Amino acid sequence: MVFMEKKIKLLNVDTIDEVAVKFGTYFGKMEKKTEYVGIREALGRYCAEEIKAEMAMPEFRRAVVDGYAVQAKDTFCVSDSVPVLLTVTGAVEMGAAAGIDVSAGEAVYVPTGGMIPKGADAMVMIEYVDHLDERTIAVNRAAAPNSGFMNIGDDFNENAQFFGKGHRLSVRDIGVLAILGKSKVLVYQKPAISIISTGDELIDVNEVPGPGQIRDLNSYTISAFAEAAGAMINEIKIVHDDFDKFRTTIESALNKSDLVIISGGSSAGNKDFTADIINSFGKPGVFTHGLAIKPGKPTIIGEALGKPIVGLPGHPMSAIIVFKVVVEAFIRKTFFGNEEEPFQILAAISENIHAGEGRTQFQLVSLLRGKEGYTAVPIRAKSGSISQLMKADGYVRIDSLTEGVYAGNQVLVTLLNYNP
Amino acid sequence: MVFMEKKIKLLNVDTIDEVAVKFGTYFGKMEKKTEYVGIREALGRYCAEEIKAEMAMPEFRRAVVDGYAVQAKDTFCVSDSVPVLLTVTGAVEMGAAAGIDVSAGEAVYVPTGGMIPKGADAMVMIEYVDHLDERTIAVNRAAAPNSGFMNIGDDFNENAQFFGKGHRLSVRDIGVLAILGKSKVLVYQKPAISIISTGDELIDVNEVPGPGQIRDLNSYTISAFAEAAGAMINEIKIVHDDFDKFRTTIESALNKSDLVIISGGSSAGNKDFTADIINSFGKPGVFTHGLAIKPGKPTIIGEALGKPIVGLPGHPMSAIIVFKVVVEAFIRKTFFGNEEEPFQILAAISENIHAGEGRTQFQLVSLLRGKEGYTAVPIRAKSGSISQLMKADGYVRIDSLTEGVYAGNQVLVTLLNYNP
Repeated sequence: MVFMEKKIKLLNVDTIDEVAVKFGTYFGKMEKKTEYVGIREALGRYCAEEIKAEMAMPEFRRAVVDGYAVQAKDTFCVSDSVPVLLTVTGAVEMGAAAGIDVSAGEAVYVPTGGMIPKGADAMVMIEYVDHLDERTIAVNRAAAPNSGFMNIGDDFNENAQFFGKGHRLSVRDIGVLAILGKSKVLVYQKPAISIISTGDELIDVNEVPGPGQIRDLNSYTISAFAEAAGAMINEIKIVHDDFDKFRTTIESALNKSDLVIISGGSSAGNKDFTADIINSFGKPGVFTHGLAIKPGKPTIIGEALGKPIVGLPGHPMSAIIVFKVVVEAFIRKTFFGNEEEPFQILAAISENIHAGEGRTQFQLVSLLRGKEGYTAVPIRAKSGSISQLMKADGYVRIDSLTEGVYAGNQVLVTLLNYNP
Repeated sequence: MVFMEKKIKLLNVDTIDEVAVKFGTYFGKMEKKTEYVGIREALGRYCAEEIKAEMAMPEFRRAVVDGYAVQAKDTFCVSDSVPVLLTVTGAVEMGAAAGIDVSAGEAVYVPTGGMIPKGADAMVMIEYVDHLDERTIAVNRAAAPNSGFMNIGDDFNENAQFFGKGHRLSVRDIGVLAILGKSKVLVYQKPAISIISTGDELIDVNEVPGPGQIRDLNSYTISAFAEAAGAMINEIKIVHDDFDKFRTTIESALNKSDLVIISGGSSAGNKDFTADIINSFGKPGVFTHGLAIKPGKPTIIGEALGKPIVGLPGHPMSAIIVFKVVVEAFIRKTFFGNEEEPFQILAAISENIHAGEGRTQFQLVSLLRGKEGYTAVPIRAKSGSISQLMKADGYVRIDSLTEGVYAGNQVLVTLLNYNP
């Protein structure tokens, strides 16, 4: 029996910025793997090529109303009482060249989206036309030169850049790919992540808890967050606290993954040997032993067998914060070249939150909508309450050198479920 | 050559509410198909079962600190100068029954997450303990009764309901499924949608535009929105304006899909015979011929071969609005039993927008973040400009009986990319 607790030694406590620099030092030069995907599989993927226009849009002078292409000067000075008569010489078919020119005194029918014929410099809307016979119209409203159609390149020019490398493709971007003819897009491959849980009390989701046991919550939560961020999950495994078995499982995971995440059981206890195992694979081993954030201090980050490996805290709230703030940012930057800011909204905080001493603080909040906007209600779940945790809509960051925030202050809330 | 334009006859213009009622009348009794998926495939799916707790959480009195389980009364009146000595009789292992009772004068080591032994009613944190020898500790801080652990059911009780039928599973919900032991979840099947584009000017994304041609934008945009809402896309097809070919394609799509969406080419022109084709399959045919919304009026909705069929307007902006406001709401309710409100934020509108006469108006907006929150900038793209459209972050609804909104007013913006 071991009664004495061996506290984890936090030898290299890093700030978020320091960790980002270390990640860059160790993994910044890792080659990003790419692959082509069809446009219908591109949603949520990250561009590995610049998306540019190969042609101007529109490529031809395109009607934006239904009506008649004319020479504008023919319609000057007309009115309801004094219309001008024009000779209809033809009609433009959709999806075809105009195939006919417009001279003075002439009009050619063009449907919305159709090509404006040469010689014409305006569209008269169908509403301002009376059809006298099959070949004659009376125009009763003046048409301004260059009206009723888009000029070549009015939307965008050849070589216009739409998305840079690293941009994550959202729903609205898919239409842009379509119009540009990108039936296939070069994207970054999804990194394969293995999640290993450790803790004698943990059982898998399909097992029935015996005395003192609890189902593994964190691995599945982290897995869902990682997939929502664009990664793929290789495997989720639970290993009980046996050094050799744990080491073998981690070695196998390192060999077949781009990133290994270790999800701790409970708080730092006498069986916490994650750092020892990481270091057992040789240099560089653990390079960050503790994060200067609250919650999330007992986080371990290192390199083993050339791969990044992260040991998350066991508290569900801490695990979520460390994943979102540190690990997801690393994944996006390293595997996807993505440094886009997460979506944030302003909300009034409902309680005072003091700044942590020397540690950046993160507070999970639940959002309540009122007439004046959202209120962010801090989730206090020191005990890891699931019923509280499932109310989390986002988190608030409070820097250590600030006074903290007071009830009623507007704070920025980063949304947990928003993945552009 | 046809010079005269035959305007679409909008015989049954419905409001959004009227359409919702009609959808309910025609398709409300459709059987929702269900299937089991593993927890790792559950993200973004809609529950087809109520998710309840089969057991209380915690199931046992669970330590939330590292320390010693004691009888609180033994520690009353102690202090740094007058500690109490307790006999350590054992330690609780993680993931196991306590297996030992605590009597007066005794202490048992319990790690965070471990089971509190019978007889104990408080935890003394390790910080307030001096280890005198292997079997004796000095406690120098009083422990309050019922402190340092969670009682059975403190988090939630047996039968606590977490999600109802129709709830869409978000990232944070996956952890809840894990803790509840839902390794498989009954969800609603993804409805299969076919999207048929029509318009002589349209070519597919992998084709090179000839004179007057343009690649099909709307089908891919709508496809991405539909997938983001949880549906699956059977096929995307372009059919040029030939009645028989179009009818055959629609018939085939109806037979293999749960919903058919027809994406119009350009605005109402002489070749717009979507309604005729829908009606050609017999009763009930088209039941909504025009929507009292702006943009989005030229929308056709009906039932053919027992399946819902929707003809969207050709203007990209109108198509997006009608899909999000009418079609997605229908899909969520009919196939997923989901009526959860979409996520909205408040933003200051940058320009006046007048209410439409007799029509609910929707305005796509781009969001700009400032110190005081977001500004919603209306996207004016009458011509269907892609470069404008790709800036759309959300939309604002302006009811017809209101005055409209004035520059600076706070308006609700429904986010296009947020899919909880």
